[in-house]
Amino acid sequence: MEKRILTKQEFADRTRRAQAVLAKTDLDAFLVFSTESEPAGVRYFSDYWPSFETAGVLIPKKGKAALIIGPESLTFAKSRSQLDTVIQVMDFRESSQPDYPGSTHPDWKKILGDYKVKKLGITGFHMFPYTIMMNIAEALGGMSHIVNADAILRPVTMKKSPLELECLRKSAKVSELGFKAILDQIKPGMTEAELCGIATAAMLANGAEATGYPVWCCSGPNSNQAISRPTLRKVRRGEIIHFSIGAKVEGYSTSLGRPVVLGKCPDETRKFLQVGLDALNMTFDEMRAGRLASDVAKKIHGYVRKQGYGDAILYGPAHGCGQMECEYPFLETSSTYKLEENMTFMADMFLHRGGMGFRWEDGLIVRKGPAEQLSSLGRQMNILEV
Amino acid sequence: MEKRILTKQEFADRTRRAQAVLAKTDLDAFLVFSTESEPAGVRYFSDYWPSFETAGVLIPKKGKAALIIGPESLTFAKSRSQLDTVIQVMDFRESSQPDYPGSTHPDWKKILGDYKVKKLGITGFHMFPYTIMMNIAEALGGMSHIVNADAILRPVTMKKSPLELECLRKSAKVSELGFKAILDQIKPGMTEAELCGIATAAMLANGAEATGYPVWCCSGPNSNQAISRPTLRKVRRGEIIHFSIGAKVEGYSTSLGRPVVLGKCPDETRKFLQVGLDALNMTFDEMRAGRLASDVAKKIHGYVRKQGYGDAILYGPAHGCGQMECEYPFLETSSTYKLEENMTFMADMFLHRGGMGFRWEDGLIVRKGPAEQLSSLGRQMNILEV
Repeated sequence: MEKRILTKQEFADRTRRAQAVLAKTDLDAFLVFSTESEPAGVRYFSDYWPSFETAGVLIPKKGKAALIIGPESLTFAKSRSQLDTVIQVMDFRESSQPDYPGSTHPDWKKILGDYKVKKLGITGFHMFPYTIMMNIAEALGGMSHIVNADAILRPVTMKKSPLELECLRKSAKVSELGFKAILDQIKPGMTEAELCGIATAAMLANGAEATGYPVWCCSGPNSNQAISRPTLRKVRRGEIIHFSIGAKVEGYSTSLGRPVVLGKCPDETRKFLQVGLDALNMTFDEMRAGRLASDVAKKIHGYVRKQGYGDAILYGPAHGCGQMECEYPFLETSSTYKLEENMTFMADMFLHRGGMGFRWEDGLIVRKGPAEQLSSLGRQMNILEV
Repeated sequence: MEKRILTKQEFADRTRRAQAVLAKTDLDAFLVFSTESEPAGVRYFSDYWPSFETAGVLIPKKGKAALIIGPESLTFAKSRSQLDTVIQVMDFRESSQPDYPGSTHPDWKKILGDYKVKKLGITGFHMFPYTIMMNIAEALGGMSHIVNADAILRPVTMKKSPLELECLRKSAKVSELGFKAILDQIKPGMTEAELCGIATAAMLANGAEATGYPVWCCSGPNSNQAISRPTLRKVRRGEIIHFSIGAKVEGYSTSLGRPVVLGKCPDETRKFLQVGLDALNMTFDEMRAGRLASDVAKKIHGYVRKQGYGDAILYGPAHGCGQMECEYPFLETSSTYKLEENMTFMADMFLHRGGMGFRWEDGLIVRKGPAEQLSSLGRQMNILEV
């Protein structure tokens, strides 16, 4: 069947590492929570991720972790889950709130009782739904039995394993093929959405299981959007058209950010694009093990300011990546942590000014020396004669 | 630019209808909440939807509604929002929890104070994050000032307007083009993911702004999955390969569910597929204004049972559709509501038995007589000689 990078052993190791952390706390278990748009935690421990519904992984102090899903996903979960125990709960059902007449899924009191959980650490805490939190609090005897465990569990996931790095490298290579399809096929008059379809199809035909998030194409007046979605606008000559293209490989996501100009590029635009590209290139050299994250951010922002574009900065110049193309930690001028080997980031230079903007973005692995660059295809002025 | 179906007036009417409902309550405002994977409510009132971040719409008793977004989406929101007032809050930031040093966004006390909100109705209540709920409760003086408003607001959205019906009709037509691309291009040896890419690209090149959810292709042993994601498995002759293909048009989503068999189809498989198809066809005739929803479900389930496939039923035979391809209400044997004209559903027959399953699915609009069918292309035994 599918040739896979991640092994059964990799998943067993993850639970074991989480249990090693758990042993040092007064918690009886972690409940790792994920949604369809934030699938990272559950996928990390189970290889399953929710769709329509939500999901969790219950990691007890000893013994096997259990995957907890909604009422409709049992066959999907059985085909994906690396955890043998799969429990269904109504609280993880889809937002249309079906009744499922006749279903007899256990409640939290039964589940947490079976695992002898008196004190629970929840991750994905800031997106955990209020109503489910209340149901769990009632089962345990109050909110004092529940702890935000995001920071506790983070050391387990922050530095990537060799197999995780393989997934990220492959994600970046497949993402490059998505951008290559754009370079081969883009023409004035195509819609942003159409171009996104071309990149998506190329990645899905070349080893991506999905896109990391929907591919973006932002053109002309839409180019100033840091977070966006494609529209049915037709792309034109002489304007900035920027792409964010990311493949998901075994649950791991990176992205390529690239501006493109069709035909003649105005000098002012070219100068603006070049500042961003220079800042991105600097970032790979600055991101070294041992450096204070805020020092890197200050240096890159300082460079952009010195070129006269300080007002064009929105964030950055980097953020963590892994199971989410954008995950903790952000790299900001306020960041207090030091970079360590095998932490993985997206170097992400988004600049915008006067209704015009662009993103240069490529993944990296932190090393003792300059960072390992996960992708580089087309990291140049892409001014295309079409 | 883009030719649009939905008008500024349509969005103004929606706020006005919500305020008419609000006037009959003791609430001072609705806070409509949405996430990236559950974008419906916020898009309904603002035409904006969140990406990476979350979002809300605050609808006061009188005056204009406001769009509330996270720190990174301002330019995107300004280009999309039908609401002039856009407020940014840290609570709606992305899950990687950036600091955004120097940002000065207002807190809930300031926002709710400005709108003189003492009692607030929240929709999307079952997915509303616990930590944000606590921040709002603190700003208002306790949870007694917050109400689950999902059922209160539902009458505003449940019956579709003429322009909403147009969006759904177009969504179905574009979805048909996605399936047509599959029929034209499918061959043994293609992966499930590759086939999904083909359907996605065809829809994005033909008027879809996005897919309603990622396209599914479930083949062979994966065909028994009611909720799924494509894999890198190669499709083969003689097995069931079923597709769920849905285009999003101006925020509205429908879907086509179709099984396909390449080469010879075993008699047992053909009989099983035919029972599902007959049940789907019956559903369009049964879904008429004035009928009790549970009566329809019982009749369709009764038919499937009579054919000897009672054990193959998981849910259904229909669920609401609109901004979500699957939204409230489900149509179940426990449903207590009556069907009304201009309610919209997906007739959705998923059956599975012995590791083999499939979905037949098409959208419909409830009428006095038989339902208006939104799509029908390929609603037949698709046994392809390839």
